[in-house]
Amino acid sequence: MSTPQLPKLSARVDRLQASTIRQILAVIDRPGMVSFAGGLPSAESFPDLSHVDLPSDLLQYGPSEGDPALRAQIAAEMNAIGLRCSADQVLVLSGSQQGIDLVAKLFIDDGTTIAVEEPTYLAALQVFRFFGAGFVPLRPREALAGLDADSPPTLAYAIPSFQNPTGHCYEAAERTALARACDRLGVTLFEDDPYRDLAYDECERTPVCASLERAHWIYQGSFSKTLAPGLRLGFMIASPELVPLLLRLKQAADLHSNRVSQHLVLEQLRSPGRAARMERVVAAYRRKRDRFAEALDRHFAGLASWKTPPGGLFFWLDLIAPLDTRELLGEAIDRGVAFMPGELFFAGQAPAHGTLRLNFSHADEAGIERGLALLADLVKSRIASPTAIAVDA
Amino acid sequence: MSTPQLPKLSARVDRLQASTIRQILAVIDRPGMVSFAGGLPSAESFPDLSHVDLPSDLLQYGPSEGDPALRAQIAAEMNAIGLRCSADQVLVLSGSQQGIDLVAKLFIDDGTTIAVEEPTYLAALQVFRFFGAGFVPLRPREALAGLDADSPPTLAYAIPSFQNPTGHCYEAAERTALARACDRLGVTLFEDDPYRDLAYDECERTPVCASLERAHWIYQGSFSKTLAPGLRLGFMIASPELVPLLLRLKQAADLHSNRVSQHLVLEQLRSPGRAARMERVVAAYRRKRDRFAEALDRHFAGLASWKTPPGGLFFWLDLIAPLDTRELLGEAIDRGVAFMPGELFFAGQAPAHGTLRLNFSHADEAGIERGLALLADLVKSRIASPTAIAVDA
Repeated sequence: MSTPQLPKLSARVDRLQASTIRQILAVIDRPGMVSFAGGLPSAESFPDLSHVDLPSDLLQYGPSEGDPALRAQIAAEMNAIGLRCSADQVLVLSGSQQGIDLVAKLFIDDGTTIAVEEPTYLAALQVFRFFGAGFVPLRPREALAGLDADSPPTLAYAIPSFQNPTGHCYEAAERTALARACDRLGVTLFEDDPYRDLAYDECERTPVCASLERAHWIYQGSFSKTLAPGLRLGFMIASPELVPLLLRLKQAADLHSNRVSQHLVLEQLRSPGRAARMERVVAAYRRKRDRFAEALDRHFAGLASWKTPPGGLFFWLDLIAPLDTRELLGEAIDRGVAFMPGELFFAGQAPAHGTLRLNFSHADEAGIERGLALLADLVKSRIASPTAIAVDA
Repeated sequence: MSTPQLPKLSARVDRLQASTIRQILAVIDRPGMVSFAGGLPSAESFPDLSHVDLPSDLLQYGPSEGDPALRAQIAAEMNAIGLRCSADQVLVLSGSQQGIDLVAKLFIDDGTTIAVEEPTYLAALQVFRFFGAGFVPLRPREALAGLDADSPPTLAYAIPSFQNPTGHCYEAAERTALARACDRLGVTLFEDDPYRDLAYDECERTPVCASLERAHWIYQGSFSKTLAPGLRLGFMIASPELVPLLLRLKQAADLHSNRVSQHLVLEQLRSPGRAARMERVVAAYRRKRDRFAEALDRHFAGLASWKTPPGGLFFWLDLIAPLDTRELLGEAIDRGVAFMPGELFFAGQAPAHGTLRLNFSHADEAGIERGLALLADLVKSRIASPTAIAVDA
């Protein structure tokens, strides 16, 4: 940031990191590249939007909150999964990344403490850090979710269902423990839930926000994983006292969300074929997850440990030996396979043993086989080499 | 902000004002309401997007910078109007309001000084203020554009073509003066140019950024006024050293802009009927502006002074007597006419005489006649009343 050519910038720009996601996304289109890097849904999962009729009133400015019929539809669906709310509490977002920006603006000053899972979604860490947050670990299996009762954090950020990057789905006891800790310590809960509909095995998915009794809360969801990310649409529901503030922040950010997308999403949500389509999508992802698990067994047995995720889009690998996987990425890409280094997902110190996040939804089965073979070879060569040992020293 | 029910929020939330725009937009749909308040383009100006074919690859995640073909098209058009840039310098935005948010994040700390026209776009003031900016006046008719050579501001924010709210279009000498002041004082220029294509009379419109020699710059444009605001699409072009930082901020804000809108906008920009459509739109707005000017002559002669704007969407009225027009708004809306109080557009002290911003593009001709008659009656009654005088005391 100290390049002499730059004008005087805000202090927070010093915390603006180059985005590894973006750097990786820039290369995954290379011919022959197998990408386990992004969280890209499979193109076969997208609805058919090839011919659409757009009412002309969509072309005018619309309400910052979002179009009323879409807000009502979202509220009805959230109530059906146990999150009591009215349509007035729903804000339509330009993708759920925007929700992270709005919440950061609302809560974070220099030095504000946020509790986060270890590891957690790296683009959330980047935004929180940019606004000046410090982090403490959120551990819902521990007493008070691992939070310090004497100086509790301002906010707890959690992805309880099919967590990014680990794929973990909180058990009922973990959900209750987190809710009780937030209630008892007065910690606002920010629950990020983009993967909830990509469930391949039976598990508890009731939003943690639904069982809060006193704490303030913000819950957000996304249409990127179940419909299409190119539509850039998500939503946020918040406890009533926070809604007017979040709404002003939304308006200041982009006036309102795209109305064409709002129309297309509402049509899809109301479509009679919706449930059948989601069943097909989930079945296809489940099959892909299972093929990926089998390929992992073939290539990574003895090199790493992992759990098969009950939902979501990622496998999380713990390598058996110390390795900074960021240093692996360049060579992996040269060989034709991209992945996300696990280190990037830790707010604090990453564990010494290497960790990797592998997306299973984007590559086809041949790509999965080839990519995992390449990656395992590379890991093997590094784990056996003296450089890798030096990382641990 | 001190409501006891709220959790601890960021310090900047104390500067988060209720948005008058939003409050007004909430009532303009009432049956019979004549609205001169928003900057809503006329629905007749919108292209026909009733049947569209969307390529399925639009549904996947896309680049944060924007789709390459759209960036190239924008760069070509900007070069054609004198702003030398490459496609690499173009960032597609989710509307130009988003550009204001990104620039504020990049430049503004508590106490950062920004030079702004008096009056200026109120939603820009709100964002700058939210991030902690203080303001000094930008006066391109004065030496060094009115800027203090000893402690120049960090940023100059200007709307040189058909300014919002005044409609003023900088003369060539004003453009040169502003560019030279920025170059000499090392002030980064943020040029906001959403109205440039809505030109009804001949005037100089070359971007001021085009004649900068040393200063850093950010230029932004919008498709809301020439195509359709519901698509929420705009763009930003910046001096090369700022582009990587703005791009990271864009990614952190919403990953990337809506790809359906990017596709629709690019199709419209390439459409063979584009020039003829814009000619029709400009002719229709010119006619509306002229009808509005005639109606103003009938109803506001002796009550206010104004200039007929050579482009854009607004008339700016200076009333002949002291009046806080914010106090007029409630009764005006009750009587069926909405407008924007001029006081909201001033960073510092608004002038004692009342000021109003009147949009002429949204209401039909009968509405213009009825709305201006109602508004003039109301102004007359207040200017004659003792309360109005008290405002000045």
